[in-house]
Amino acid sequence: MAGSVFGTLLTVSTFGESHGAALGAVIDGFPAGMELSAEDIQPYLDRRRPGRSAASTERNEPDRVEILSGVFGGRTTGTPIAMVIRSTAQRSGDYADLAECYRPGHADYGYDAKYGIRDYRGGGRSSGRETVSRVAAGAVAAKLLKSCGIEAFAFVTGIGEERLNPDQMERIRSALISGEGAEHYLRLRDSLPTGIPDEETSRRALELIGRMREEGDSVGSSIECIISGVPAGIGDPVFNKLDAKLAGAVMSVGAVKSVSFGDGLSAMTARGSEFNDPFIVRDGAVIPETNRAGGILGGISTGREIILDLSVKPTPSVFLPQKTVSSRGEETTLTIRGRHDPVIAPRATVVAECMCALSLADSMMINMTSRAEYFTKFYG
Amino acid sequence: MAGSVFGTLLTVSTFGESHGAALGAVIDGFPAGMELSAEDIQPYLDRRRPGRSAASTERNEPDRVEILSGVFGGRTTGTPIAMVIRSTAQRSGDYADLAECYRPGHADYGYDAKYGIRDYRGGGRSSGRETVSRVAAGAVAAKLLKSCGIEAFAFVTGIGEERLNPDQMERIRSALISGEGAEHYLRLRDSLPTGIPDEETSRRALELIGRMREEGDSVGSSIECIISGVPAGIGDPVFNKLDAKLAGAVMSVGAVKSVSFGDGLSAMTARGSEFNDPFIVRDGAVIPETNRAGGILGGISTGREIILDLSVKPTPSVFLPQKTVSSRGEETTLTIRGRHDPVIAPRATVVAECMCALSLADSMMINMTSRAEYFTKFYG
Amino acid sequence: MAGSVFGTLLTVSTFGESHGAALGAVIDGFPAGMELSAEDIQPYLDRRRPGRSAASTERNEPDRVEILSGVFGGRTTGTPIAMVIRSTAQRSGDYADLAECYRPGHADYGYDAKYGIRDYRGGGRSSGRETVSRVAAGAVAAKLLKSCGIEAFAFVTGIGEERLNPDQMERIRSALISGEGAEHYLRLRDSLPTGIPDEETSRRALELIGRMREEGDSVGSSIECIISGVPAGIGDPVFNKLDAKLAGAVMSVGAVKSVSFGDGLSAMTARGSEFNDPFIVRDGAVIPETNRAGGILGGISTGREIILDLSVKPTPSVFLPQKTVSSRGEETTLTIRGRHDPVIAPRATVVAECMCALSLADSMMINMTSRAEYFTKFYG
Amino acid sequence: MAGSVFGTLLTVSTFGESHGAALGAVIDGFPAGMELSAEDIQPYLDRRRPGRSAASTERNEPDRVEILSGVFGGRTTGTPIAMVIRSTAQRSGDYADLAECYRPGHADYGYDAKYGIRDYRGGGRSSGRETVSRVAAGAVAAKLLKSCGIEAFAFVTGIGEERLNPDQMERIRSALISGEGAEHYLRLRDSLPTGIPDEETSRRALELIGRMREEGDSVGSSIECIISGVPAGIGDPVFNKLDAKLAGAVMSVGAVKSVSFGDGLSAMTARGSEFNDPFIVRDGAVIPETNRAGGILGGISTGREIILDLSVKPTPSVFLPQKTVSSRGEETTLTIRGRHDPVIAPRATVVAECMCALSLADSMMINMTSRAEYFTKFYG
Repeated sequence: MAGSVFGTLLTVSTFGESHGAALGAVIDGFPAGMELSAEDIQPYLDRRRPGRSAASTERNEPDRVEILSGVFGGRTTGTPIAMVIRSTAQRSGDYADLAECYRPGHADYGYDAKYGIRDYRGGGRSSGRETVSRVAAGAVAAKLLKSCGIEAFAFVTGIGEERLNPDQMERIRSALISGEGAEHYLRLRDSLPTGIPDEETSRRALELIGRMREEGDSVGSSIECIISGVPAGIGDPVFNKLDAKLAGAVMSVGAVKSVSFGDGLSAMTARGSEFNDPFIVRDGAVIPETNRAGGILGGISTGREIILDLSVKPTPSVFLPQKTVSSRGEETTLTIRGRHDPVIAPRATVVAECMCALSLADSMMINMTSRAEYFTKFYG
Repeated sequence: MAGSVFGTLLTVSTFGESHGAALGAVIDGFPAGMELSAEDIQPYLDRRRPGRSAASTERNEPDRVEILSGVFGGRTTGTPIAMVIRSTAQRSGDYADLAECYRPGHADYGYDAKYGIRDYRGGGRSSGRETVSRVAAGAVAAKLLKSCGIEAFAFVTGIGEERLNPDQMERIRSALISGEGAEHYLRLRDSLPTGIPDEETSRRALELIGRMREEGDSVGSSIECIISGVPAGIGDPVFNKLDAKLAGAVMSVGAVKSVSFGDGLSAMTARGSEFNDPFIVRDGAVIPETNRAGGILGGISTGREIILDLSVKPTPSVFLPQKTVSSRGEETTLTIRGRHDPVIAPRATVVAECMCALSLADSMMINMTSRAEYFTKFYG
Repeated sequence: MAGSVFGTLLTVSTFGESHGAALGAVIDGFPAGMELSAEDIQPYLDRRRPGRSAASTERNEPDRVEILSGVFGGRTTGTPIAMVIRSTAQRSGDYADLAECYRPGHADYGYDAKYGIRDYRGGGRSSGRETVSRVAAGAVAAKLLKSCGIEAFAFVTGIGEERLNPDQMERIRSALISGEGAEHYLRLRDSLPTGIPDEETSRRALELIGRMREEGDSVGSSIECIISGVPAGIGDPVFNKLDAKLAGAVMSVGAVKSVSFGDGLSAMTARGSEFNDPFIVRDGAVIPETNRAGGILGGISTGREIILDLSVKPTPSVFLPQKTVSSRGEETTLTIRGRHDPVIAPRATVVAECMCALSLADSMMINMTSRAEYFTKFYG
Repeated sequence: MAGSVFGTLLTVSTFGESHGAALGAVIDGFPAGMELSAEDIQPYLDRRRPGRSAASTERNEPDRVEILSGVFGGRTTGTPIAMVIRSTAQRSGDYADLAECYRPGHADYGYDAKYGIRDYRGGGRSSGRETVSRVAAGAVAAKLLKSCGIEAFAFVTGIGEERLNPDQMERIRSALISGEGAEHYLRLRDSLPTGIPDEETSRRALELIGRMREEGDSVGSSIECIISGVPAGIGDPVFNKLDAKLAGAVMSVGAVKSVSFGDGLSAMTARGSEFNDPFIVRDGAVIPETNRAGGILGGISTGREIILDLSVKPTPSVFLPQKTVSSRGEETTLTIRGRHDPVIAPRATVVAECMCALSLADSMMINMTSRAEYFTKFYG
């Protein structure tokens, strides 16, 4: 499959450039009979949308989704669900001089090396705006998962050196996993411009963002995504392990530079006797008592929540002069103009959730055929 | 595609359980005309093999590969290359009691939840022994890449708290990338039982391993993989980004718990002005002057070496009593017997290299069709 | 991949229902740098369009294509090319009673059995209108092929018992293959309402169509598709043989009920000594002297033109009363109203060409990686 | 996916050349828990095996299958099932002069044009011997289908001009579909050397084969495959229609030159009013009363048996002198020696059945995810 196509049973094909006529996604293989309308998708797009706050660019794009196919009488029909988001503001003039040189930290040079041609308007296909399509598609998958009590929650864990401390992390995790207090933290995440579900940390991070904006600089950030309600047994051995699919899915999001599962980073110095999660019986079911593994063992879900942590690089579009090379091969200095968020994570949490939803829904659909007895029961 | 199949143009299908009759791989889509024999593959299998040292189990499996098809007159023919590695030591008796309960840190429970049946002999398909197939296939891809000056080098960067320091890391990286001194470090890596290319660090790590063995415990580790010689322009936008594919590929290796690219982890606290790699002209070509990005921007290679860092969890098979649940759903205590390496990374470096080779070769083959002018030149 | 997605390197994802808001296609993996605009696609859509003549329904849908992405400065960029064709006439009222029962010869019952829900407006996704998307995508592939001198020509070979005789067939084939006189026959095909490139046969067929229309009945038809200019060596062994891919591609078009290659049907009674095409040398190149094989041997092109013959069933929407069952499971009689062509082939020739173009372009792109020497030359 | 890999959920990867060390198949994605042993597969291989009679070559290859993985305790485990069939008779000497020139009717020239190298021993990968792998894999899928009452029966309908007449065809079909008398015809098929389930027709066909053998010539043949027990609703819209998949699957078998469904060939001259199958209610279920469609409408199964007809070309290896070209590009005359069946269909019926089983099982697995209610019921 080509590069903008994703999934085995649940196949998503996305399209669109930053300053093109439209962006969109076609979801094929989606099960029939689920209620679906644009109202299910719009809140996800709104979370991704800029202009909500000081943490993001002021440019106000409505990003209204239109469903072109695959829904009839308010329900999915099993046929491809095409969604289009028309672009309203196409100001390619702002980007004219970017045609002439390669922005550091961007894919410009790679695209030219690969294709010999590049849509330089706002980065074209390599722009973060591409994630609109992921969010539209992911919202549909998320609704299917939610009908089985499965939900992904992503939040910003830190911006630059302003970070949630381990205690705060633990409290937020517990709330999101148990459901008790989850509303509180999600409201904080959605109302605070940083996406950090803690007022004090968010306030300090916002100050940092303000300084970055003043200095014409940008700053890195990090995201945690928790998927709760995943039953044991999801994922496929060897190459399509659930963690392998999730890792590939979130790493495909523009600025993500690392991904780890559970206590993944500390694993490298841990002892086996402390890192293994003991199995216990709870409510008659086998379950890991702790969750250092992050909900996946040997690529297959354990029945515990799945936990991913992502590091996100600083916005590469900084307003300070940068050394670079022109497309004619001459060294030069570039000063980027325009509007760019100085930090990426706040608008990327919903993208992470959506990529997790698409991956997981695909693996769960595949899993429905894992036993011969399922087959014979279905058809017998 | 099912879970044990990998790749778009270069498709690898692997099979085999830890204590089954054989393991193997079928590579399809491999270009015709490359010289290939078992001798090309054997050294890679030997690097993965246990029993080389105190750092690994004493069990001595020869792992001889036989090529069953796809090679004629010493050259690949373009048809599927099937490789089989017969198992010599099948002592399922050692594992009999594992049939009865779920080993913590292992996929046992997940397999039962998914399939309702499980080959409990040594973990079956979820055993690290499965990587034999990856190595056999990866060795073939590596030879193709090497013919274009592209090579992946993985080495152990730390075992538990015994780790290479930043200066050492930098020196090793420079040598591997430039080629100057690379031999020295690769010889260290291959001769020292830890796979850490530094005598002193390796010695301390070996002591740690010895303590773990005595205590019946195990310890985590970490790996860096450097791919040198990759031209700019490799990788596909959006979902099949080169880093997304590589991340999924290495995360699919059993005990890997995190992956980052370049200075990926520090990205979350960095400033954009310092994290962006400036472009310069060197020898007439555009190239990033520094390589914090780890060789990939926007999912497409920049022409710089690709750098991945992996954290690897401690061997889950520890010999201390562990709390767990039996397959009949009763809580119990398990004491694992047998032979298991107390650390995973030393034998996994070659696996990481091989997964990178398979991913990269696939992306490079796809890239040959990226421009209409290539098509018309080829067929015109 | 899900059912509405096609191709390995050149991946096409289509969407849309007969009476939905829009139909369209997303082509991903298309090489960068080819000039492309809606003008390249529109003539293909126009050939598929109804209302040209007495042979087709009077309903006049303009079917204007809009390219939403993947083209910049008049050239393809290597990123997904999204094309949308808005529906203008959505008169679901005409089809209201079809919601209540299963039309014989249609997919209505199958969709209900599969999905439990069905867009009954004009057949929804199972309508022949779905082929609009195939034509839009195929037109883009056809342009790429044409740049290398490769072209697919399909024409109607018969409608009911009014058929081209073998001499006429031979003359048309020769002209299309050699190019000499091709214009004449293509002009006939495009100007005569039957798509049969012979005035007398077309006239008789048109009379037959008129009788069918009067009787409220419909009639079967047949198509030949010739692909000229295909170099030797295209196609992949075993499952992705070129003829296997082409057969699947054209059989996926709604009413097609059989496909054969070259003298495929007479093969079953032929002798090997007469059926084998001898190889000769012509202009320094190896070439089969005759072409009973239809341009493909062992699944790989021989350098001769590829010839496919398709039989197409009568339009299932006849206006005579038909015995059927309601969606409540009661036997009933259905009398279809509305407008339907009494014959399918005339509008389907362009669909056959487009499916051949998509299949062939995909196989040709894959073939660019068939030899290690191509790889090393490209990257060395 | 590369050319020797087949299927979406049920993925089969095959390998092996005619005179190589072994042939085999790896089935991945097969559901866990089905009883499986080599005894399930061997009868299928035996049906494909040469040397049973005057209709086939005397060469006696045992073709014993060994299962290397994916089965534990007599049941499938959900992990890849690798099967190997070792070659016993490797007489490449017989084929030495074939290295020098292109056999008419064979893929020799295509392979050279594509790969620049060719395993000329017995055709290498393009030999009919490749179908051993298909049969091994198909036998496993067939067992799964049989557990739900689904079975494919293929028989030879004619050899050269000696053909079953319509009455005989109808009687055989009825028996195979209803089950009444099926045993009789299958016994005839399996005991008569021609695979034609009628003694008199078979006798005449055998005489024809004898004449062909004497004359050093070969003759074409034809096959019908009936799949009974398929529930309504199988297949996916647009490109992965059930008939499109089946057509591609059987057309990928070496000598098959045409495929039609139901009354597919006569469709081109039929009237809609006679070709449409009326729906009726039988035993409380909707079902087409007749089956001109061959069990598939709009690419989705109707609940009636699926009927495919294939034409098979004469064995291209005839012993008469043939005009051809050497691999050095010189015109020459080739006289093939060795042993070759003068007709292909008798040994190909089991191959057709197996390709149908693989295709259908894959589509049926995919269909298990067609409705959101199935998903929520499975996971809710």
